[in-house]
Amino acid sequence: MKILSFAGALRAGSISKQLVQEAGRALLERHGIVADYADLKDYPFPVYDTDIEQNIGIPDSILQLALRVRDANALIIASPEYNGGISSVLKTLVDWLSRVKPSPLAGKFLLLLSASPSGSGGVLGLWHTRVPFEACGVHVFPHMVAVPRAQTAFGQDGQLSDEKSQKKVNEIIDAFVAHVAAHHPIHLPKKEASLANQP
Amino acid sequence: MKILSFAGALRAGSISKQLVQEAGRALLERHGIVADYADLKDYPFPVYDTDIEQNIGIPDSILQLALRVRDANALIIASPEYNGGISSVLKTLVDWLSRVKPSPLAGKFLLLLSASPSGSGGVLGLWHTRVPFEACGVHVFPHMVAVPRAQTAFGQDGQLSDEKSQKKVNEIIDAFVAHVAAHHPIHLPKKEASLANQP
Amino acid sequence: MKILSFAGALRAGSISKQLVQEAGRALLERHGIVADYADLKDYPFPVYDTDIEQNIGIPDSILQLALRVRDANALIIASPEYNGGISSVLKTLVDWLSRVKPSPLAGKFLLLLSASPSGSGGVLGLWHTRVPFEACGVHVFPHMVAVPRAQTAFGQDGQLSDEKSQKKVNEIIDAFVAHVAAHHPIHLPKKEASLANQP
Amino acid sequence: MKILSFAGALRAGSISKQLVQEAGRALLERHGIVADYADLKDYPFPVYDTDIEQNIGIPDSILQLALRVRDANALIIASPEYNGGISSVLKTLVDWLSRVKPSPLAGKFLLLLSASPSGSGGVLGLWHTRVPFEACGVHVFPHMVAVPRAQTAFGQDGQLSDEKSQKKVNEIIDAFVAHVAAHHPIHLPKKEASLANQP
Repeated sequence: MKILSFAGALRAGSISKQLVQEAGRALLERHGIVADYADLKDYPFPVYDTDIEQNIGIPDSILQLALRVRDANALIIASPEYNGGISSVLKTLVDWLSRVKPSPLAGKFLLLLSASPSGSGGVLGLWHTRVPFEACGVHVFPHMVAVPRAQTAFGQDGQLSDEKSQKKVNEIIDAFVAHVAAHHPIHLPKKEASLANQP
Repeated sequence: MKILSFAGALRAGSISKQLVQEAGRALLERHGIVADYADLKDYPFPVYDTDIEQNIGIPDSILQLALRVRDANALIIASPEYNGGISSVLKTLVDWLSRVKPSPLAGKFLLLLSASPSGSGGVLGLWHTRVPFEACGVHVFPHMVAVPRAQTAFGQDGQLSDEKSQKKVNEIIDAFVAHVAAHHPIHLPKKEASLANQP
Repeated sequence: MKILSFAGALRAGSISKQLVQEAGRALLERHGIVADYADLKDYPFPVYDTDIEQNIGIPDSILQLALRVRDANALIIASPEYNGGISSVLKTLVDWLSRVKPSPLAGKFLLLLSASPSGSGGVLGLWHTRVPFEACGVHVFPHMVAVPRAQTAFGQDGQLSDEKSQKKVNEIIDAFVAHVAAHHPIHLPKKEASLANQP
Repeated sequence: MKILSFAGALRAGSISKQLVQEAGRALLERHGIVADYADLKDYPFPVYDTDIEQNIGIPDSILQLALRVRDANALIIASPEYNGGISSVLKTLVDWLSRVKPSPLAGKFLLLLSASPSGSGGVLGLWHTRVPFEACGVHVFPHMVAVPRAQTAFGQDGQLSDEKSQKKVNEIIDAFVAHVAAHHPIHLPKKEASLANQP
């Protein structure tokens, strides 16, 4: 099972990057899976602009990310809530990726995580984050984990130290891996891709 | 593969009931699957009220529907858009079903369809309809079909006569059946159920 | 200024009923406004069913509530989050009210509150609750208050004892009253009603 | 009344730019209001990145737009639906603007429009577009207009030629102007700004 993981934030040391690393640790320790981790900072892309796409083309950074997405069975993304909604970084990425044909996202499985200083842990943002991925044909796992009060949940070493949150991350990783592992597509990818490419 | 199908509307002759029958025809003709069709009119339940639940108990109609849900691998629901959101009938059903323990919905696959006289076909309602099911641990299929201008898309015999819409229904039924068929859970149900029962 | 207040829950002693009473206290003490409080338990209505509407008519309870809505400038509703979305009780009410012509809801101002035992206070449900009201032409106030950890935020007397939450309720009531008071419509109601009645 | 108008898309000749110009024509012809039109292409900004904000500062383009927003009573934005959600351009703008203190958006009125080749006219995107603005304290007008089948609704001169859509734009502009004109705030701005600045 190949899993691509990244954070929907750019800042070095963002809580979302720490959380997705935590998911990576759980994948390795509990399932022996080495996630393919990408830092979006290494793939700079501009705000989506159809003029850029038509005159210059889809940015190379997006094409490279599309290859890493295509190469994976599943994605794990930890992403912040910005103004009650999806991170603009992540929405920009999805809007660019959706211009690559055939769709690299269609038919993939996705697990969403968040962490924030608030009491809700950014869960509101996660619900909005589901939508563009689902519109691109992604099977977004129904369960999600939002770590609240992140400034105390993570230790100074950047690792999740709150036991309750650790347990939730472990449990959701187990359930997600089991779900993806249970899936043995035969005729599926072609069908799904064709649905996703419909206007 | 056992599929339970029903409409998120009560009215006899509702377009949603016609559409879910259309899905049933596609299941039978294309995949030899006889869907277990339920008419919510045969399962009358009151508006959700915690007092009823605590003093009288969960209504028998809900317990019977819960059994039919539990017995299925997957659900197909056609549901109208009411005031830009989920049908209140369907939300009431989900709120009642979510009180049955263990959760009958957790881990099920769900395909959502809609039809409406409008140009959008009720797709806005479908996006809101996803949420409570996903909150209950349901794997809602990312692709959905919303049939626009339903008054002309369906013939006087109540069958879908618009060819473009028929083709879309056929394709999504094929993709959904392939997706559910590809899934062979081993350890999953227990994990998922435990996630779904967390507060 | 006439304000109608109610909870989107039926249970006697529900936290939402306590919270909306708290809003009533703030309205009275800070602005001298006596809210018109309605308990939905006194207005029993069935699950929405077009057959009932066409064969029997809109229930009297709904028509009576429609009169109270029409008589108010603004509404204050405290409502629980059920399965990540709007309370089915409240959605059922909106679906019934939307069948009354001309629309009693169009052009009204609405403040939404919630309280829940969770860390998010039910804020996710509030965001879904906005939608059907906005679809009916209601001006939903952008700010909302979601009281987290409600079992400790409210004292045994049913009053909000958590100071931080009290302060938030007071501030939002002040801002909402100021906003509604600042509005002096001249040509508006007719225009808005006609927009709301469009398909 | 000062109204700032712009499109949530960058492409020269985008349908959203044509639609917002149409709104400008209606404002001028029907109400004598000259909207302050901004083209986001003239205000280039990068994808939101906290590192940029902390090391370099909020981009000048954003600060200039913030001034134009602050100077207006109301905004009119036509914005496309990308992947079932908000345009990433517009979400990026909101995320940057939300970092300017005090909030330029809090307390403003906003009318949302869209146009798309689809039968739904992009109305799904508009509903997601409301959220981050509302989270920033914006009073988003409940009514919206989504122009379907935009390729035929607009003539070759870039003007809206479909009569039904023209009528809808005229009516919503009338209703929005009446609503904003009816608002005479006294104590409001300070209160609302303080609410918007709360975490």
